[in-house]
Amino acid sequence: MGIINSEFILRNETARQLYNEYAKDMPIIDYHCHINPQEIAEDRKFDNITQVWLGGDHYKWRLIRSNGINEDEITGDTDARVKFQHFADMLPKAIGNPMYHWTHLELKKYFDYDGILNSDTAEEVWQLCNSKLQDDNMSVRGLINASNVAVIGTTDDPIDDLRWHKAIAEDKDFKTKVVPSYRPDKAVNIEKPGFKEYIEKLSAVVGYEIKTVADVKNALTERLKFFCENGCKASDHGLDYAVFSIMSENELDEVLTRALNGETVSQAEADAYKTAILLHLGKEYAKRDVVMQIHYGAIRNTNSKKFERLGPDTGFDCISTRACGDELVKFMDALEKEDSLPKTVLYSLNPFDNAMLDTFLGAFQGTEVEGKIQHGSAWWFNDTKRGMEEQLKSLADLSLLGNFIGMLTDSRSFLSYTRHDYFRRILCNLLGEWVENGEYPNDQKALKEIVEGICYKNAARYFGF
Amino acid sequence: MGIINSEFILRNETARQLYNEYAKDMPIIDYHCHINPQEIAEDRKFDNITQVWLGGDHYKWRLIRSNGINEDEITGDTDARVKFQHFADMLPKAIGNPMYHWTHLELKKYFDYDGILNSDTAEEVWQLCNSKLQDDNMSVRGLINASNVAVIGTTDDPIDDLRWHKAIAEDKDFKTKVVPSYRPDKAVNIEKPGFKEYIEKLSAVVGYEIKTVADVKNALTERLKFFCENGCKASDHGLDYAVFSIMSENELDEVLTRALNGETVSQAEADAYKTAILLHLGKEYAKRDVVMQIHYGAIRNTNSKKFERLGPDTGFDCISTRACGDELVKFMDALEKEDSLPKTVLYSLNPFDNAMLDTFLGAFQGTEVEGKIQHGSAWWFNDTKRGMEEQLKSLADLSLLGNFIGMLTDSRSFLSYTRHDYFRRILCNLLGEWVENGEYPNDQKALKEIVEGICYKNAARYFGF
Amino acid sequence: MGIINSEFILRNETARQLYNEYAKDMPIIDYHCHINPQEIAEDRKFDNITQVWLGGDHYKWRLIRSNGINEDEITGDTDARVKFQHFADMLPKAIGNPMYHWTHLELKKYFDYDGILNSDTAEEVWQLCNSKLQDDNMSVRGLINASNVAVIGTTDDPIDDLRWHKAIAEDKDFKTKVVPSYRPDKAVNIEKPGFKEYIEKLSAVVGYEIKTVADVKNALTERLKFFCENGCKASDHGLDYAVFSIMSENELDEVLTRALNGETVSQAEADAYKTAILLHLGKEYAKRDVVMQIHYGAIRNTNSKKFERLGPDTGFDCISTRACGDELVKFMDALEKEDSLPKTVLYSLNPFDNAMLDTFLGAFQGTEVEGKIQHGSAWWFNDTKRGMEEQLKSLADLSLLGNFIGMLTDSRSFLSYTRHDYFRRILCNLLGEWVENGEYPNDQKALKEIVEGICYKNAARYFGF
Repeated sequence: MGIINSEFILRNETARQLYNEYAKDMPIIDYHCHINPQEIAEDRKFDNITQVWLGGDHYKWRLIRSNGINEDEITGDTDARVKFQHFADMLPKAIGNPMYHWTHLELKKYFDYDGILNSDTAEEVWQLCNSKLQDDNMSVRGLINASNVAVIGTTDDPIDDLRWHKAIAEDKDFKTKVVPSYRPDKAVNIEKPGFKEYIEKLSAVVGYEIKTVADVKNALTERLKFFCENGCKASDHGLDYAVFSIMSENELDEVLTRALNGETVSQAEADAYKTAILLHLGKEYAKRDVVMQIHYGAIRNTNSKKFERLGPDTGFDCISTRACGDELVKFMDALEKEDSLPKTVLYSLNPFDNAMLDTFLGAFQGTEVEGKIQHGSAWWFNDTKRGMEEQLKSLADLSLLGNFIGMLTDSRSFLSYTRHDYFRRILCNLLGEWVENGEYPNDQKALKEIVEGICYKNAARYFGF
Repeated sequence: MGIINSEFILRNETARQLYNEYAKDMPIIDYHCHINPQEIAEDRKFDNITQVWLGGDHYKWRLIRSNGINEDEITGDTDARVKFQHFADMLPKAIGNPMYHWTHLELKKYFDYDGILNSDTAEEVWQLCNSKLQDDNMSVRGLINASNVAVIGTTDDPIDDLRWHKAIAEDKDFKTKVVPSYRPDKAVNIEKPGFKEYIEKLSAVVGYEIKTVADVKNALTERLKFFCENGCKASDHGLDYAVFSIMSENELDEVLTRALNGETVSQAEADAYKTAILLHLGKEYAKRDVVMQIHYGAIRNTNSKKFERLGPDTGFDCISTRACGDELVKFMDALEKEDSLPKTVLYSLNPFDNAMLDTFLGAFQGTEVEGKIQHGSAWWFNDTKRGMEEQLKSLADLSLLGNFIGMLTDSRSFLSYTRHDYFRRILCNLLGEWVENGEYPNDQKALKEIVEGICYKNAARYFGF
Repeated sequence: MGIINSEFILRNETARQLYNEYAKDMPIIDYHCHINPQEIAEDRKFDNITQVWLGGDHYKWRLIRSNGINEDEITGDTDARVKFQHFADMLPKAIGNPMYHWTHLELKKYFDYDGILNSDTAEEVWQLCNSKLQDDNMSVRGLINASNVAVIGTTDDPIDDLRWHKAIAEDKDFKTKVVPSYRPDKAVNIEKPGFKEYIEKLSAVVGYEIKTVADVKNALTERLKFFCENGCKASDHGLDYAVFSIMSENELDEVLTRALNGETVSQAEADAYKTAILLHLGKEYAKRDVVMQIHYGAIRNTNSKKFERLGPDTGFDCISTRACGDELVKFMDALEKEDSLPKTVLYSLNPFDNAMLDTFLGAFQGTEVEGKIQHGSAWWFNDTKRGMEEQLKSLADLSLLGNFIGMLTDSRSFLSYTRHDYFRRILCNLLGEWVENGEYPNDQKALKEIVEGICYKNAARYFGF
């Protein structure tokens, strides 16, 4: 009764041909994810499937919560087997949800399980997975090797010493490139709790006191240089919404002083500070050929009670529909005016920004690389079959799909590489449908270039791996 | 040439199997509609099909207006046969519109008419329907019985004495449960004409003068208790947009005083007053296990001239795309913080809020019931085949479709129960498509639970009928 | 390997039947485009395919830019053959983009080319097209005749003397009606550069000094009369966003005085001035039975650097998602209140306004004509297969599709008439799908009326050609 087979998602002959001949065997460049490099360096192993699956996956937590289960039995100290049962009990109701597909793709790929996970099979799956997890090739590196991953781009704080990245790079036996990405959100979010403390830490790392906005910029530039020396090719910014408002350096210094004194700053002041830092960093990225990723459109930590109990990134963030396209476009224009717009990848959490973003691309392209400005693959809540199809179709409608840099997992798990397979099937299915419907010729030369490009080659060229 | 048959909407084998075995014969819980309980109590009969169809149906009026017909011949004193002809003349142009399907579903189910309504068949249909309407089993109760309706949730003002609900409940021969829903919009809309007069009526009902916000809250609580004693399981709020702004009780009392003196209040003041009343009611609902329905996103009475002539709810409301997700989420959080968030059903009139709303669900779930926070079935202008499919797919992508409480008619007509049939066909068609595409296994145990759940059992459990 | 054949887009039997019997041979009414009437009057011929295709087409420029090509080799002085090669090199990557279809529709229709344009065939296509362009029947009038165009509605400034329209009208050998449309954007955009200079020109044309808002109104009315005398049936307004804010005539005169002195006016003042002019013109249109087209939702000239180099309309405009539905509806209501709402066609550049706009229609219909208020065909960035299908489906869901006035090219090119063919295929495919799915009966009388109506007859009746 299993659903994962050679025809999964591939609903037409051309789709299957494209997938088998051009997509399936391409290496993976997972240029944006949240895995912990220490676990790669130490080649971590896992005790049981609950640890792997339910240890930090807020997608799964949200679904189990939606099934009426008590928080204690999801993220609390409850027995791992009980937590796993809650997941299995919930799963059949997740019809149409990507979790249903992800779960079975992972069970098939890494555990060779052909069945369906539900209340009745939970014990069988529990035993099978835990037993397989004892195998030596089920360590973190074993999983990465089995997944044909060429490059992993982690997400790292500027104050990180990158010791684990260095350790991995020095180990010549491990072929996968593991490179840091520069994510300075904590230095940007001046209005959020912890800013003062973060700046103190940053100060300690660079070795001088940070008192002015110029100091922040210098410290961030210094750390960016350090990241670049360690293979960094991309940065990442997580914004609630895009900002663009200008204040004088003096005013901003005054705002910063207040923030560092633990006083509150207004949202308008915070937006102006953010604009200044982001403009500075944009220029530094352009100078160093570092890609700037901009993720926006979340309402964070909506449930205060759960935030107090569980902290951030635990499944209480939501989609925001706040319109901020004007600001985003002004931000890009301000950099472009000074010939300082870096290669940029835009992501919105609101799927109904797709068309808008896709029109931004064509207005700011450049000659550095084909497709300098990119619309990133369907992000987070949109990372579904439907969301990916929508992103691909909108991109095709309004830009050059053939230059798209393709999929990333954005994941915290080493089993998530199957999402590249999921994406490739969806991509090939869509292209195959167009060909079979007579909307594109069966031109194998062109199709090979498009499929191989989107699956691997475009990202390799774009980031310069 | 008729279109209503056993395969209508059901485009694949699995769809037909799911529909026939699990969906078709489930009782109907129409938990949110606008029918008049007096007509059930008195078992009203109808003179002619124009009275049934064109008496109060602004969906039909809008379409006939779009065909260039004079208002007099739509809602005026014109002869019923002429009005019916306008409807029949317009209908073939409504290709792709749900009205085309609703009309033929009703003609088939209640009048056993197999043909197509158009200019040429209008006379035949007019004769047939009017003749059948004379049958005893074509009374309101006859229609309800023929539709296998287990529960009807009407929509009622807090000052209503519920005499008709009581009368129906006392009549042991009538098996369908008819329960009131609590809709205190008139006590909430402080900035709208009629507020002062409404508060005077409310005052008369509770028997004391209402001078402060606390008085309003007390009066509304008192009426809610009365509603609960009469079987009420749900409330309903119709908001132009979601609100969340806080003012002190003193300030709000001052605002209320002005409103009760017939002076104007600003929109900001109105929003703060509404927030206070809604927060109070949310807590009261939670205490009494009453479901809170929130409908938002309309621009009301856009055409002033027609509003003056015809009043509200006559087909001049429109979709608003104003973003108010931040406010909605803060409102829910404020209740959740005090452990006072009731079971909640969210509806937006803007179909492009679907994804946002579906992410709200997972952030506020609880253990009271599976799927405590719900995204309501495609509402009003979205109550179309495409709108329902979008709501189902978005819900599936971002939440647990298996826990969805399903369809409601939101209708003023006793012939609208066929919309549950329409919904069930659309649901089964979608699920069947997923199964036949290999995206979900043909697991009859799971599919039965999902289909029966969404058609009937989830709503029964959720509302506690 | 060509893709353009009798089944292109037409994926079912009914679709092909509807297209062949009712759609294909209908004359074209291209009621809104940007072609230059002088070129018709002078019956211009073209030197080469680069001139025709890449001379002014910002759709193509955007795609070539997205392929990493230098601006010089797109819009600069580079050799025409090199520019053409860049276009051909890019094209295979434009899989899914309407450009891929438009290009091959034009190559087939006007150049009888059956192959696929790409890097390898560029030279062959270059030779073929340039050779054919020498034919006498490949002049502007030849192309128009070959396209069966009954009416062309150009877009013209109120100060235009319409000499070319007159010249064309006097030439009895040319059967296609070429009528001006009234587009007074430059008199409306008080806050934009060039306003002062424009008003001076308008002043010169009407022969009196323009000092007050009343003067502007009078001058615009006078020019509108002149346009109507020359066959004008439609106006057009391009707004960044819909406006509705009221200031007194005195205040507005003061704002105008400042603008005419070259001083800046605030956005709020500009919005009030625009509202006043638009309300005035709306009434004048209603009086003269002139259709009012409202296009909104663009962020214009986002890339300042390229704007300085290339000016407006060169491919740097983007979709705006700014919400302005409330203002649009208030504007329509203000005219309706005075019985002065003209026939109106609404277009938003944000595809996620479709549903909202479609609900506006039903609220403001009238008896002047079937479908007095229209939702215009998918505009600009939405003028894609998917965009047109979305517009048609949303319109069908929420209004009367059968009264839709159909397609327009909005184009600057004489080869774009194939977009009507593209639209007709998409329309027939959608209708055919509904029929074959059993959602609409195979009622040839009704379907003929719908297809012929949307392809030609509705527009003829609506504009009064």
